[in-house]
Amino acid sequence: MAREFRQKIRQKNTDNSGFGDNASGRFINKDGLPNVRRKGVNIFNRFSWYHTMLELSTFNFLSYLVVAYILVNLFFALIYYLIGVEHLTGIDKSDAVNEFIDVFFFSSQTFTTVGYGRIAPVGFMASLVATFEAFLGLLTFAIATGLFYGRFSRPRAYLKFSDIALIAPFMDKTALMFRLAPYKNNSLTDADVTVSAAIEVIENSVKKSNFYTLKTRLNRINTLALNWTIVHVIDEDSPFFGFSDEDFKKTDIEIIVHVRAFDEVFSNTVVQRTSYVSEEIVYGAKFVPMYYPDQENLSTVLDLDKISHYQQTDLPEFKEEKNK
Amino acid sequence: MAREFRQKIRQKNTDNSGFGDNASGRFINKDGLPNVRRKGVNIFNRFSWYHTMLELSTFNFLSYLVVAYILVNLFFALIYYLIGVEHLTGIDKSDAVNEFIDVFFFSSQTFTTVGYGRIAPVGFMASLVATFEAFLGLLTFAIATGLFYGRFSRPRAYLKFSDIALIAPFMDKTALMFRLAPYKNNSLTDADVTVSAAIEVIENSVKKSNFYTLKTRLNRINTLALNWTIVHVIDEDSPFFGFSDEDFKKTDIEIIVHVRAFDEVFSNTVVQRTSYVSEEIVYGAKFVPMYYPDQENLSTVLDLDKISHYQQTDLPEFKEEKNK
Amino acid sequence: MAREFRQKIRQKNTDNSGFGDNASGRFINKDGLPNVRRKGVNIFNRFSWYHTMLELSTFNFLSYLVVAYILVNLFFALIYYLIGVEHLTGIDKSDAVNEFIDVFFFSSQTFTTVGYGRIAPVGFMASLVATFEAFLGLLTFAIATGLFYGRFSRPRAYLKFSDIALIAPFMDKTALMFRLAPYKNNSLTDADVTVSAAIEVIENSVKKSNFYTLKTRLNRINTLALNWTIVHVIDEDSPFFGFSDEDFKKTDIEIIVHVRAFDEVFSNTVVQRTSYVSEEIVYGAKFVPMYYPDQENLSTVLDLDKISHYQQTDLPEFKEEKNK
Amino acid sequence: MAREFRQKIRQKNTDNSGFGDNASGRFINKDGLPNVRRKGVNIFNRFSWYHTMLELSTFNFLSYLVVAYILVNLFFALIYYLIGVEHLTGIDKSDAVNEFIDVFFFSSQTFTTVGYGRIAPVGFMASLVATFEAFLGLLTFAIATGLFYGRFSRPRAYLKFSDIALIAPFMDKTALMFRLAPYKNNSLTDADVTVSAAIEVIENSVKKSNFYTLKTRLNRINTLALNWTIVHVIDEDSPFFGFSDEDFKKTDIEIIVHVRAFDEVFSNTVVQRTSYVSEEIVYGAKFVPMYYPDQENLSTVLDLDKISHYQQTDLPEFKEEKNK
Repeated sequence: MAREFRQKIRQKNTDNSGFGDNASGRFINKDGLPNVRRKGVNIFNRFSWYHTMLELSTFNFLSYLVVAYILVNLFFALIYYLIGVEHLTGIDKSDAVNEFIDVFFFSSQTFTTVGYGRIAPVGFMASLVATFEAFLGLLTFAIATGLFYGRFSRPRAYLKFSDIALIAPFMDKTALMFRLAPYKNNSLTDADVTVSAAIEVIENSVKKSNFYTLKTRLNRINTLALNWTIVHVIDEDSPFFGFSDEDFKKTDIEIIVHVRAFDEVFSNTVVQRTSYVSEEIVYGAKFVPMYYPDQENLSTVLDLDKISHYQQTDLPEFKEEKNK
Repeated sequence: MAREFRQKIRQKNTDNSGFGDNASGRFINKDGLPNVRRKGVNIFNRFSWYHTMLELSTFNFLSYLVVAYILVNLFFALIYYLIGVEHLTGIDKSDAVNEFIDVFFFSSQTFTTVGYGRIAPVGFMASLVATFEAFLGLLTFAIATGLFYGRFSRPRAYLKFSDIALIAPFMDKTALMFRLAPYKNNSLTDADVTVSAAIEVIENSVKKSNFYTLKTRLNRINTLALNWTIVHVIDEDSPFFGFSDEDFKKTDIEIIVHVRAFDEVFSNTVVQRTSYVSEEIVYGAKFVPMYYPDQENLSTVLDLDKISHYQQTDLPEFKEEKNK
Repeated sequence: MAREFRQKIRQKNTDNSGFGDNASGRFINKDGLPNVRRKGVNIFNRFSWYHTMLELSTFNFLSYLVVAYILVNLFFALIYYLIGVEHLTGIDKSDAVNEFIDVFFFSSQTFTTVGYGRIAPVGFMASLVATFEAFLGLLTFAIATGLFYGRFSRPRAYLKFSDIALIAPFMDKTALMFRLAPYKNNSLTDADVTVSAAIEVIENSVKKSNFYTLKTRLNRINTLALNWTIVHVIDEDSPFFGFSDEDFKKTDIEIIVHVRAFDEVFSNTVVQRTSYVSEEIVYGAKFVPMYYPDQENLSTVLDLDKISHYQQTDLPEFKEEKNK
Repeated sequence: MAREFRQKIRQKNTDNSGFGDNASGRFINKDGLPNVRRKGVNIFNRFSWYHTMLELSTFNFLSYLVVAYILVNLFFALIYYLIGVEHLTGIDKSDAVNEFIDVFFFSSQTFTTVGYGRIAPVGFMASLVATFEAFLGLLTFAIATGLFYGRFSRPRAYLKFSDIALIAPFMDKTALMFRLAPYKNNSLTDADVTVSAAIEVIENSVKKSNFYTLKTRLNRINTLALNWTIVHVIDEDSPFFGFSDEDFKKTDIEIIVHVRAFDEVFSNTVVQRTSYVSEEIVYGAKFVPMYYPDQENLSTVLDLDKISHYQQTDLPEFKEEKNK
């Protein structure tokens, strides 16, 4: 896909991206995580189960809890059954199925420490197992407490990015633009953004990725309450200077975005990343406004559904600046 | 309300406020949150329930917990009732109301895992539901534990601001002043303040808000133990240079204050914001002292009730500085 | 105590200490907290109960928990007793005392959700109260969980300071010195120190405190594993330049120390403050070493008991520097 | 091991390492903790039990919990036994052993609040002890909840370092290199590294350690997703300039590495340290690549098992730079 550029990119490429020049595929996935697979080390050491638990969806997380609860009770029910139902009082001994059902419920009543006592251990072995099951139950809920807290107290930026980046007119020049907005009732201040671009070039007939820092017109704002349109002016210092619509389409480009802000509720720094690849860049378009005064003129309304709305527009010609 | 100013504001307005120039109403509410409503996205994704729970008042938070507890027990009582009271031992079967009351209490004894056992499940369905109710109960209290911890460990600055800002004499000049003090037994150090002003101006017959950074005489102090009076000298570099009492009253002004400090107990940065609008600015007044040595001269007393106390005073004339 | 100094202190005093010049008594207590009392605001709003709970000693904290537990149970026992013991099964009704004892234990079995069921509610009112007591019990332990976690996860520096500061010889000059060392098995890096001095002076016959920043020879070290001796050279730029033993004794001086470091276990910044007043400054003394190689020469031993050990020594004369 | 160097090390040694020059043994252990033992202070004050609990291995931590659980129950069982089994209902009184077994299980059912009620307290003393045991049980699990959360939410970098550092060719010079890579599914950004060297020298016939900061070619990268090779070029400014293979072997050298990064899941800074001593430095070798495109060319594969793989190679001659 890469092509030998007619014009030389004037900006020196940076070498602190952390990505190698012969890596392949997208660098940053749309969700902000690096597109890297790790192998080696053994599988148990390669995952932080806590990180994994925090990144599960709520549905999956709760499903895993329920399944684990059922499995643990089946396991202990089997043990009580093997020890013998005569070590428990109050069991319905009409047949083996009813016996198993009752030891299963005894297990769950022990694990949750509800302990009605209708079924209760009398023998040594059953009592001993129940002693450890109740202990295990409490430790499990201690861990679950931590996981729940970890999950919902995890600082997150809750930013929505426009699906596409635009090559839009800006003043009398052309600029790369995309926008973002906070979509939840969190309160962000002191936001800053870092934008870089990975551009695939052919040097000595070898395809490699060069990384460039993209200067933005404003890289820090005080309060992130409305939307924020990030503007990289494509002037002579930009690696995209002189790029035509076709250049954008034919070159493997990835715009990597890193936003950092201070969440006033968590009193913590939150970050979010995303990236735009060639297919997600629209040439010759501009965003439509997404906020307006409310009807009583007392407040401002931010319409989040419009974040990716744009309209086609013409672009000014590129022109060399003289007094640089 | 805005008026075309006779004099030009010399300071260049800043564009990194994060607010647009055609937003309406107060920018920052008195409680420090931006005055913005969000629409679009669906309602479930637009709220972070954790942020919401953390920002509820203690009374509301506890009320919600109690109501949820009652509703959950009514729900499970209904299920047990539908399954049939014959699946539970120890139920008072004198009439339907007593039956329902007893299944309600059975439910609560299961949900809290108190499980006296006077009422206990014997049938398969009732046992199964009880198994999940006890599990749900523990998870609920796991979540409540996290919410309680999240609520009271949430880093907060606990700063009290004066209700009003003053235009007061300072040295031989005039200054905008307001003050703040920590009102709880927390310990703040390394406090810094950022003050900006949104001033409504008419440019080309269009009302818009310009944003200005207000320089303060001291913007960082080591220990925030007494009150801190923040002083913005209205010299030629101030956007308020030359403003009369009437100018302050007739112009839409909003002073936006952002304080940041380090809480030594939480070892965390805490922030607090507030704003003063035109009606909250008193022209020609000065604050009365609010701290004094205690009677034994061994300690300093800070009287928080005096934080908004001021007395009227005359102001010096504005004069242009020559050697600037 | 203050005296008009023969020599003028050359260093300009700083005004960002956060303390006023007419405050009284010690500014910072030996434990690092500011010596300020707050009044006004109502008493319930003036304390952050969470900060209070975190700063209680372990013994007091546990005592409060036990006392609260007993009081809560007495309260609920009274309610059950007033409702009538006939609403509870299994009560020893031999006399009123035994009845009360049994409802007390029923209360505790409900509050802790242990719920043996030997005593159990049968009537509506007793069941209803028990329903809420169990709920309250779980919420209480949810809060206790948070408090315990808050208490022991609270980031603390665990630094031990020398009891005294010394005026000691350093190179061919005189220096103010004190030292500190981490005394627990935490791991601190990137430590920095800020030292300032409050000196009482008489200006126009009025006693006031001036604040000075004291430059230290090293104000940042990479790893805080051994002891760290902080050295403020008393040269011409020091406010103490020319101070004799008598000057140090007769002047109200307070050296305020603020240490900040990064705790690698908590991944958090920890801070600790202390102060030295005139009586805690020893003139003409130097510290004895407090670390040495272990016997096998494989490790270094830090003897924390020696942190305040010093020996008397002579001081060099003050001399003006020429090429400054 | 130290030797008088033919050539003078040009770089000035730094004095902010925090280590003394007559400390002994390795400064930083391979696991990143300083090699210092503390004595003095009493043993109870010298350990932060929370830090200790957080640094235990999972196996040890769980073992301690189980042992503590058994000991607590044995202790309470003994108390109930001494009070007398007649104060408990449902005890198997066939012989003393069975009695003790039953009070042990009663204790565990009380401590975990499972409270089946088959065994229940009837007398005052047994009820009173049970009241406190249940209370203690809940507080214990409250503490355990905090410890579990503290353990798994503890921010850690999860970096794997190469076992060895290499003296490798770099451009037309020689460089000290080692590499690191994240080995878990955490997401690190803004990583920076600080490298210093402790070199044992003989000054005036006394062995002492000098500390030098080692400049690295890149000391900050944006995304730590692949491996990061840290390169210290051995030019004239390096303390190792002119070192031969023999010099590296015969001199006591310790390379101290400190990495700091931002974990996007925890929204927290994480750090990790390690060190390389003389025996862990390989002269004349270079690392083999450890990442490559995957087969479909859509992603990059990082092979963590190769992190310490290297091959022998020749080194260029040292040469003085002219235009410095």
